[in-house]
Amino acid sequence: MSRAPELIPSDRAPGLLLGESVELPESVEFGGNVVLHAGTRVGEWARLQDGCVIGKSVALGPRSSAAAGEAATTTIIGARTTIGAAAVVVAGAVVGERCVVADQAHVRERTEIGDESVVGRAASVENDVRVGSRVRMQTGAYVTAWSVVEDEVFIAPGVMLTNDPTAGRRPPGMELRGPTLRRGCRIGAGAVLLPGIEVGEDAFVAAGAVVTQDVPPGALVMGVPARVVP
Amino acid sequence: MSRAPELIPSDRAPGLLLGESVELPESVEFGGNVVLHAGTRVGEWARLQDGCVIGKSVALGPRSSAAAGEAATTTIIGARTTIGAAAVVVAGAVVGERCVVADQAHVRERTEIGDESVVGRAASVENDVRVGSRVRMQTGAYVTAWSVVEDEVFIAPGVMLTNDPTAGRRPPGMELRGPTLRRGCRIGAGAVLLPGIEVGEDAFVAAGAVVTQDVPPGALVMGVPARVVP
Amino acid sequence: MSRAPELIPSDRAPGLLLGESVELPESVEFGGNVVLHAGTRVGEWARLQDGCVIGKSVALGPRSSAAAGEAATTTIIGARTTIGAAAVVVAGAVVGERCVVADQAHVRERTEIGDESVVGRAASVENDVRVGSRVRMQTGAYVTAWSVVEDEVFIAPGVMLTNDPTAGRRPPGMELRGPTLRRGCRIGAGAVLLPGIEVGEDAFVAAGAVVTQDVPPGALVMGVPARVVP
Repeated sequence: MSRAPELIPSDRAPGLLLGESVELPESVEFGGNVVLHAGTRVGEWARLQDGCVIGKSVALGPRSSAAAGEAATTTIIGARTTIGAAAVVVAGAVVGERCVVADQAHVRERTEIGDESVVGRAASVENDVRVGSRVRMQTGAYVTAWSVVEDEVFIAPGVMLTNDPTAGRRPPGMELRGPTLRRGCRIGAGAVLLPGIEVGEDAFVAAGAVVTQDVPPGALVMGVPARVVP
Repeated sequence: MSRAPELIPSDRAPGLLLGESVELPESVEFGGNVVLHAGTRVGEWARLQDGCVIGKSVALGPRSSAAAGEAATTTIIGARTTIGAAAVVVAGAVVGERCVVADQAHVRERTEIGDESVVGRAASVENDVRVGSRVRMQTGAYVTAWSVVEDEVFIAPGVMLTNDPTAGRRPPGMELRGPTLRRGCRIGAGAVLLPGIEVGEDAFVAAGAVVTQDVPPGALVMGVPARVVP
Repeated sequence: MSRAPELIPSDRAPGLLLGESVELPESVEFGGNVVLHAGTRVGEWARLQDGCVIGKSVALGPRSSAAAGEAATTTIIGARTTIGAAAVVVAGAVVGERCVVADQAHVRERTEIGDESVVGRAASVENDVRVGSRVRMQTGAYVTAWSVVEDEVFIAPGVMLTNDPTAGRRPPGMELRGPTLRRGCRIGAGAVLLPGIEVGEDAFVAAGAVVTQDVPPGALVMGVPARVVP
């Protein structure tokens, strides 16, 4: 025998594989071939679509910075939340109630997502991110590790947040710092935000902007590099 | 028993799960763990690769605009079309003949794709899009809802089309409008197109451009914002 | 019977499907629903996470340029390498030792990846690419066909490399040429590199740059189009 995981086929749904001590109410709805690893807790009336994977262990590179945090093995999917087809939720993530983690999306360890938020199709929320409630992240958006995203923020398709000003050459002890997106701000399609940038409440970053400085509350910025439009 | 889908294991291929009344000719070729939901119609000699999911119900956020259309439950995959590994085709999509929906790509409800078109690896065509024939969309391209893409258009990797000038704050009744890409136009890698933009026949949008105005037929535009290059 | 692949269920792990003559040491660790096609060779202590697909045949469009190369049917995953959940490795790829091909990532035919390199979550390395050792490609990065990526290169999230100056209208016989990234260079988030560009050793391309000319060794470039910052 090779080293197989603790997964056991379940007759509750076609192709369902369950790890140990998975909490799974009767009201949960399944697609085919869902995989729930040990320590996953699913809320009432959640929907788990075809081929989604919840609670899998993180796959880190040999020199990844994400290993800094402690191991987290409980993964929580809130009540009435949908996890889309082929989506992956890594062990230790906490997803709130009435959320959608859309098809092919990805949520990583030690990240918490508030209620009624949407992680769009193929979007990614990395490790150690705080996401508020009613946040909408659209297709392919990338929220880097150690970002903060407050309530009602809107992140358009293809937005890239960054956290490493050295692009991979940090001296030992230097921490990564993602952007902070204040309540209700909006980030247009394809915008790039440099590490540690703060976008103020209700500010609007235009599509395609490259944001290199903090954006004041309520401001509109555009261009490369982004400047305030009076 | 929890709420399981109508999916039934089939001995026609390893790990195949089938919903009710799926049309599936003998000539179809399978990878492993394919899921075909109720109402899926697959054409002759189609290829369905490992872990692809066809006809799954849409996963919408609580305030998504996509719910506006009517439920569509027939999903059509044309003859000799390939659906790649881990690709997802949502219920109500219509994919033409001799197409490729590549690995990890995504096609949504009420979208129609013409013959011999390619949806590249991890590319996304959202709901209510009309895509012509011999269109090529490359890796990670994003074609937003309510776009029109005519025949022989070329969309390079990472292109982002947008449809919401308010970035998530539309007043009630305001419709979304995606770009219109006229026949044979070409959109370079990483370009961003603002909502409702029309790119004229045979026009060329350079890589990295942010297109904020209509592009005349045959024109070349580049830059941020994009300007016509004489 | 329809045309099913050669895949046979294996009792070595839950949901595992194996093609003919797969090399699979006892030390390999599995998630659920892994698919290994014929001709796959997996090294000792590799980890194959849930739903990954290795050695599947390529899905090409009718006019794809990738068909030019010869068929390659051996797919190699090096010792102690991790293949993430829902990742896809196409038949004929060679992945080195102690690598990570992260969740939902993609590696194509005739591409070779050196030891200890990371293909980030949902990143893509197309066909006929040479990737060195200790290379880090982050989330959603796209390395186009016929690129060269030397040792210790860093490619940030959402970077797009391109290889076709005609955007799909090449005359017969014209070859595609991807960028060449020299040893230790760094490409910032969301940057776009035009076809055939060379980025010199230890050079740094700023986030959001559109690189239209070669970048000298050690230089910093930024902007659209990218210019050297003295």
